[in-house]
Amino acid sequence: MPVTTATGRPAPSRGADPAAFCTVRARTEALAAPLGAEDQVVQSMPDCSPTKWHRAHTTWFFEEFVLNRHVAGYRPVDDSYRYLFNSYYEAVGERQPRPRRGLITRPTVDEVAAYRRAIDRSVLDLLGRPGDTAAPLEPEVAALVELGLHHEEQHQELLLMDAKHLLFQNPQHPAYRSDAPDGDADASPTRRGDTAPAGVQGWIPHEGGPVDIGVAAGDPTFSFDNEGPRHTVHLQPFAIADRLVTNGEWQDFIDDGGYRRPELWLSDGWATVNEQGWRAPSYWFGLDDPDGPQVFTLAGPQAVRAADPVVHVSLYEADAFARWAGARLPTEAEWEVVARDRWGADTDGLATAPHPRPGADGSDPQFRGAVWQWTASAYLPFPGFRPAAGAVGEYNGKFMVNQHVLRGGSCATPPGHARPTYRNFFPPAARWPFTGLRLATDA
Amino acid sequence: MPVTTATGRPAPSRGADPAAFCTVRARTEALAAPLGAEDQVVQSMPDCSPTKWHRAHTTWFFEEFVLNRHVAGYRPVDDSYRYLFNSYYEAVGERQPRPRRGLITRPTVDEVAAYRRAIDRSVLDLLGRPGDTAAPLEPEVAALVELGLHHEEQHQELLLMDAKHLLFQNPQHPAYRSDAPDGDADASPTRRGDTAPAGVQGWIPHEGGPVDIGVAAGDPTFSFDNEGPRHTVHLQPFAIADRLVTNGEWQDFIDDGGYRRPELWLSDGWATVNEQGWRAPSYWFGLDDPDGPQVFTLAGPQAVRAADPVVHVSLYEADAFARWAGARLPTEAEWEVVARDRWGADTDGLATAPHPRPGADGSDPQFRGAVWQWTASAYLPFPGFRPAAGAVGEYNGKFMVNQHVLRGGSCATPPGHARPTYRNFFPPAARWPFTGLRLATDA
Amino acid sequence: MPVTTATGRPAPSRGADPAAFCTVRARTEALAAPLGAEDQVVQSMPDCSPTKWHRAHTTWFFEEFVLNRHVAGYRPVDDSYRYLFNSYYEAVGERQPRPRRGLITRPTVDEVAAYRRAIDRSVLDLLGRPGDTAAPLEPEVAALVELGLHHEEQHQELLLMDAKHLLFQNPQHPAYRSDAPDGDADASPTRRGDTAPAGVQGWIPHEGGPVDIGVAAGDPTFSFDNEGPRHTVHLQPFAIADRLVTNGEWQDFIDDGGYRRPELWLSDGWATVNEQGWRAPSYWFGLDDPDGPQVFTLAGPQAVRAADPVVHVSLYEADAFARWAGARLPTEAEWEVVARDRWGADTDGLATAPHPRPGADGSDPQFRGAVWQWTASAYLPFPGFRPAAGAVGEYNGKFMVNQHVLRGGSCATPPGHARPTYRNFFPPAARWPFTGLRLATDA
Amino acid sequence: MPVTTATGRPAPSRGADPAAFCTVRARTEALAAPLGAEDQVVQSMPDCSPTKWHRAHTTWFFEEFVLNRHVAGYRPVDDSYRYLFNSYYEAVGERQPRPRRGLITRPTVDEVAAYRRAIDRSVLDLLGRPGDTAAPLEPEVAALVELGLHHEEQHQELLLMDAKHLLFQNPQHPAYRSDAPDGDADASPTRRGDTAPAGVQGWIPHEGGPVDIGVAAGDPTFSFDNEGPRHTVHLQPFAIADRLVTNGEWQDFIDDGGYRRPELWLSDGWATVNEQGWRAPSYWFGLDDPDGPQVFTLAGPQAVRAADPVVHVSLYEADAFARWAGARLPTEAEWEVVARDRWGADTDGLATAPHPRPGADGSDPQFRGAVWQWTASAYLPFPGFRPAAGAVGEYNGKFMVNQHVLRGGSCATPPGHARPTYRNFFPPAARWPFTGLRLATDA
Repeated sequence: MPVTTATGRPAPSRGADPAAFCTVRARTEALAAPLGAEDQVVQSMPDCSPTKWHRAHTTWFFEEFVLNRHVAGYRPVDDSYRYLFNSYYEAVGERQPRPRRGLITRPTVDEVAAYRRAIDRSVLDLLGRPGDTAAPLEPEVAALVELGLHHEEQHQELLLMDAKHLLFQNPQHPAYRSDAPDGDADASPTRRGDTAPAGVQGWIPHEGGPVDIGVAAGDPTFSFDNEGPRHTVHLQPFAIADRLVTNGEWQDFIDDGGYRRPELWLSDGWATVNEQGWRAPSYWFGLDDPDGPQVFTLAGPQAVRAADPVVHVSLYEADAFARWAGARLPTEAEWEVVARDRWGADTDGLATAPHPRPGADGSDPQFRGAVWQWTASAYLPFPGFRPAAGAVGEYNGKFMVNQHVLRGGSCATPPGHARPTYRNFFPPAARWPFTGLRLATDA
Repeated sequence: MPVTTATGRPAPSRGADPAAFCTVRARTEALAAPLGAEDQVVQSMPDCSPTKWHRAHTTWFFEEFVLNRHVAGYRPVDDSYRYLFNSYYEAVGERQPRPRRGLITRPTVDEVAAYRRAIDRSVLDLLGRPGDTAAPLEPEVAALVELGLHHEEQHQELLLMDAKHLLFQNPQHPAYRSDAPDGDADASPTRRGDTAPAGVQGWIPHEGGPVDIGVAAGDPTFSFDNEGPRHTVHLQPFAIADRLVTNGEWQDFIDDGGYRRPELWLSDGWATVNEQGWRAPSYWFGLDDPDGPQVFTLAGPQAVRAADPVVHVSLYEADAFARWAGARLPTEAEWEVVARDRWGADTDGLATAPHPRPGADGSDPQFRGAVWQWTASAYLPFPGFRPAAGAVGEYNGKFMVNQHVLRGGSCATPPGHARPTYRNFFPPAARWPFTGLRLATDA
Repeated sequence: MPVTTATGRPAPSRGADPAAFCTVRARTEALAAPLGAEDQVVQSMPDCSPTKWHRAHTTWFFEEFVLNRHVAGYRPVDDSYRYLFNSYYEAVGERQPRPRRGLITRPTVDEVAAYRRAIDRSVLDLLGRPGDTAAPLEPEVAALVELGLHHEEQHQELLLMDAKHLLFQNPQHPAYRSDAPDGDADASPTRRGDTAPAGVQGWIPHEGGPVDIGVAAGDPTFSFDNEGPRHTVHLQPFAIADRLVTNGEWQDFIDDGGYRRPELWLSDGWATVNEQGWRAPSYWFGLDDPDGPQVFTLAGPQAVRAADPVVHVSLYEADAFARWAGARLPTEAEWEVVARDRWGADTDGLATAPHPRPGADGSDPQFRGAVWQWTASAYLPFPGFRPAAGAVGEYNGKFMVNQHVLRGGSCATPPGHARPTYRNFFPPAARWPFTGLRLATDA
Repeated sequence: MPVTTATGRPAPSRGADPAAFCTVRARTEALAAPLGAEDQVVQSMPDCSPTKWHRAHTTWFFEEFVLNRHVAGYRPVDDSYRYLFNSYYEAVGERQPRPRRGLITRPTVDEVAAYRRAIDRSVLDLLGRPGDTAAPLEPEVAALVELGLHHEEQHQELLLMDAKHLLFQNPQHPAYRSDAPDGDADASPTRRGDTAPAGVQGWIPHEGGPVDIGVAAGDPTFSFDNEGPRHTVHLQPFAIADRLVTNGEWQDFIDDGGYRRPELWLSDGWATVNEQGWRAPSYWFGLDDPDGPQVFTLAGPQAVRAADPVVHVSLYEADAFARWAGARLPTEAEWEVVARDRWGADTDGLATAPHPRPGADGSDPQFRGAVWQWTASAYLPFPGFRPAAGAVGEYNGKFMVNQHVLRGGSCATPPGHARPTYRNFFPPAARWPFTGLRLATDA
């Protein structure tokens, strides 16, 4: 999830709230806690970053954009961190090349923890501790703090994605945590053994016509700048599936030769399948075992459960599956107009279960949890898009090429982080994010 | 220009016309004529193909899809050609890998010419010679012949693109032909020395709202399947430039540090600029010469003329230029709704001049000639797109990822080949096609 | 065969002889004659060069080192040829990068032929035509001409190696010439069908002790500088095989799992076997055919004949075979002391037959023909080695690392070109030269 | 230093000595102690291994070859370690690919320490604790233990080489230890600031003729199998430098354009210089600083001291330097016959000083310390070489291609580890070992 940022809006709800700051910051540390120093320093591929780097980079974000720029006389904790922990902000200056982040063994994990504590103290000096009655924070600074919190939440998901990828490289397949959110049926004893079929998939119809999508100017709720402006899109009549595609359905695709039939694939996808030797979603292994394949989760290896949503498939695979199924992927506009009526209230993680129950309000937690859902839409600017001003917004749109939009949220997305308008994006061959799909069809 | 194909419509105008067949086939041979056997066999990069291969592949297309499938008892000229000259049709079978097309020195150029003549005879046996009063061709076969002619016209442009690329690898920079269409001001004595400035660029406004684009089902004119279905798009008010961006403007961009300022570029574009060491459009050389840069054309090296449209720029460069100019690229829908009113009648190549005069009918030849124009639109299926049935349509949509749409036509496009609905497409880093740009802006 | 050069000795036998010059030059043209323009321009891999390039480069050698430097007022045929046809002479200046030699389609094959004729005329003006009674050539110039002839003979073998490699890339496997030297049993009707076994291999013993090898200073016969100085080497008692390893023996190695047993291989060799997927010598194909494998020769595909010497194996394979056979490769000193007594008189190509008969003088033509023989010796300077002075000798020793010495000569080596002291060399993974092996063992 | 191993000889001095075992094992732990968990897990390039891996692999060596094979009923500490910590023993089975050793974050550093302790206990059960009066160890087992100790000493040097390489990747250039052996002038206060010139280099002459080198069969002192058999080599008269090449001399080479003059280089070396952008020895930085370059040492960055031996140069650079100096590299035979008379008694590390004083016995510590010295000799088997029997000797000779021999020892070599006959070896482009040179010349 390459991180897009934007200055927020006049009245940020969390940016001036020290309790919110502490909550988000503590959650990162809690996510890192099951990982030892060895686990936190290694980079398993150029797209991934070490845990230690995520912890330091999210901290640097506050130091660079809030403290350095808005606290008179602020002195950086360590001058080298600006180089080491800048991700891709050209305006901030030179930086450690991304594929070489895993070569930086110092500062150590303990030193990074100390860096986090030091920055936390400085930011809290600015915000006031919970309960303080300090002078109100300037709106611009509060907006930057709020942005930093959303930025850190994005990295919380990246941290899990990257840790999962790293641990899977080990032939021993060690678990991140036995009660990890991924492979989450295990986390809840009441749901263990839940192998009930996912049920027949139905269709949610939509009559098409002009619809408005995206975030309107002036909306007081936080959003990233790539979610706006709100604009009209003309849809043809269509229907969208009422649930995600499952492992069982994916196994049918495999059994029907899905990975060996070029007519199902985009040309670039077919080339990738053959170069990479793909035969199943990422993290599946033991494909030829008589007992059936296993899947590596953050909670360790598990049997593949037919009723669970399939996860860790690329856009190429999602597109081929849809073609095999006689359907297609939804566009992001189609997805959004349906999802916003079924998003429901965020009820603390319920959405992350693989088989969440619809809410009493008609909401469908699979829209906001379980897996990110590939859409047919390339990641491009909405009409009238303008990047936010200043350093944090310098590159808001610079990733808008060669990627596809994903909507929804995953089991690894922090609760409350996503929205119906949220635009996640990855290159079409990416499989290490928590990516799945929902079908659509012309009416 | 990876070639898309589609079975045509019930009443193809050219598919049953032996004179049209002869005209198109002869034009390919005329384009190859300035090239020696050595020039015709070498492949200068994996994206390019040898001239000999283009001549053979377009011939194989008729042999495979028309003769093999619709002439009882047809015996192929050479069984090996099916392997050697298939481009990417998985259903037809295995084929020579694209990056290795240049290793096939036999059949020789003369043998390929003989192959062309043999297939011409067989197809003309089917069509009847000009003036013959034969039984009418079956519509399905006529549609395949017509498709084959449009397919061959696409390869005529590819042949020129690829030959230009090859000749430029030679440090001697030999010309393809002194009166080649590229660098064409030289071809017309009356226009030689035409260094008049291109004139101040103006804007063509459009009020936005719902518009229909694409080819409607049942339209009797030939089109490729990716041009339809016709569908409604909702546009915001916008304006589009009344002419193409020129070399002079591009030189200003260079002089203003355009290739050295990361803030102007998409992230992937900036990485490409640095990896490739781009400092100017492709085919420009002598950048540090006191007399100014030169450009390699099919007619050989020439001084860069400020008033000519810039050509051989990638999407990344076009996008960065537009940002530098305070504008953006048009979407393909914006482009089409304006271009269709200004396309004009095809008057035999006039459009290919760099400074064509507007027609008496208000048409603007720069919409249909000079250079292909990058759009902001990713190459994706139109809503409701269905690939054509059968082998020729097997892969119509399989290139719809990782590419951007270009509209218009170039100096190398065969006269009459393109249309306002024509969707050309290339990856965003491609520079060897005849690619330029026209700016757009929000109203 | 990267070409080493050296200024010759005081009284070159061929350097002042116009008839010798004409003979060598004409032989190159005869070798190129079966190849069309298409065949002569393509480069099939970076180690190979196009036929056209070999023809031009050998010509440039005379132009650069003889005419430019020793003919007052000489004007080059084309100024660009110095860049295009320099191989690796840093002192001469910049040059076309080796892996891009195949991108140079002009000058054409005909223009290269004209270049050859022009240089021939200029050199013959210097040498005098056969029969002329001209002033004697200066010894230094004669030495350079003689060097140029040996240099051209080396390229004659390279031309055949490279043409064979190119033609094998074509799935049609076209022959270079039906009576080509490679696969030569077919060339001689009396030997056709000669499938007699090669006979039991015997051993030629040697008592060891101090021996002198290499070319002594002052030896009037031409040699390359890397063949000297003559020096003493102390050998342990050993024995060397009385014939080359055959295809039949190699098939036994394959059948015994030779390519699948790591304990037989050098570590770098085992890595190469697995990376390249080697299962047999180069040019063997149809390994799983029920009728047995075929081998591609310059005369086209043939059945693998058990009694023929194996050819186109790398040092890695030769070394593994020797280990499998309980033997080892000979050092170059061991090879030379045995071979010089059995070299025999050169009798016009007889040595190139796969089963040459021993001469009446006790000579064994397999020492000087059939295949180049890998030795256990790395290609290093002999003690006291000094590169020749001047431009032609500038880089005589610069290839003396990362290569192994081969001794003997092959079916593609020009008659009379090699000597018992001749040191050919290639990297240990090279398989496109005509390389085989002869075993040795400790006494 | 790819590790060669060999079963030792009948009466190993250290293999049955528990005190020796404890000493060597403890030294490894002491060398790892300054490195944190983060430092110990990362792999900075495919040629390097993590510290943690070295600690585990040397332990596995004892477990696999001593305990598994010679202790009845032995049960491995962890079944996965055989896969994770096998280096290249094909006969032992599949193993973690070398370039991916750095992806294994578990077992942790602490778990590896526990593994070491467990194996130590088991081996000591076999050897008896120091002071024990146990039954004597079988000679075969004692030989394996002795081999394991020499093997571990080799890895002690590798550990330092690899740690140095890793730390240098960090732009902060953190020191391994302020008193590290590398950069060792700092380790001895009396020598700090020792910037006296190295003195004029003299020559040690040798009359040449037949000499015997290598280890004789039956020599009771431990040696690796590649050091024998002892055999006669015939030398030409020569002279060898009486000291190592210094940084000051290397700076002269740089200043004289050494890295920019192709005529000084082997062809492969020149290609490497240009591909890698070499301008100075590895670990030098700040080349354009007005205060002169710095060098990274295990003790951190230091000014380059003119009188110190140059270190971290490749064979290519050593060879080019020698040519520039009008000299050459010695062969390994030349080196050995001179060095064995000047080796002297091992006096605990004195040799590792950059400017050691000659011993009272005429010994010259620079022969056995400071830097490994490139020779002109390719790494090939000595005549009559036979690999040792059994698993540990399975691959003794398998690295004998594409490498050059180095002689001597370095500041990072464990005291007493090397010998005058010791053959170290690396590929010609390697610069991360502690490699320097000593000149030689023909008499």
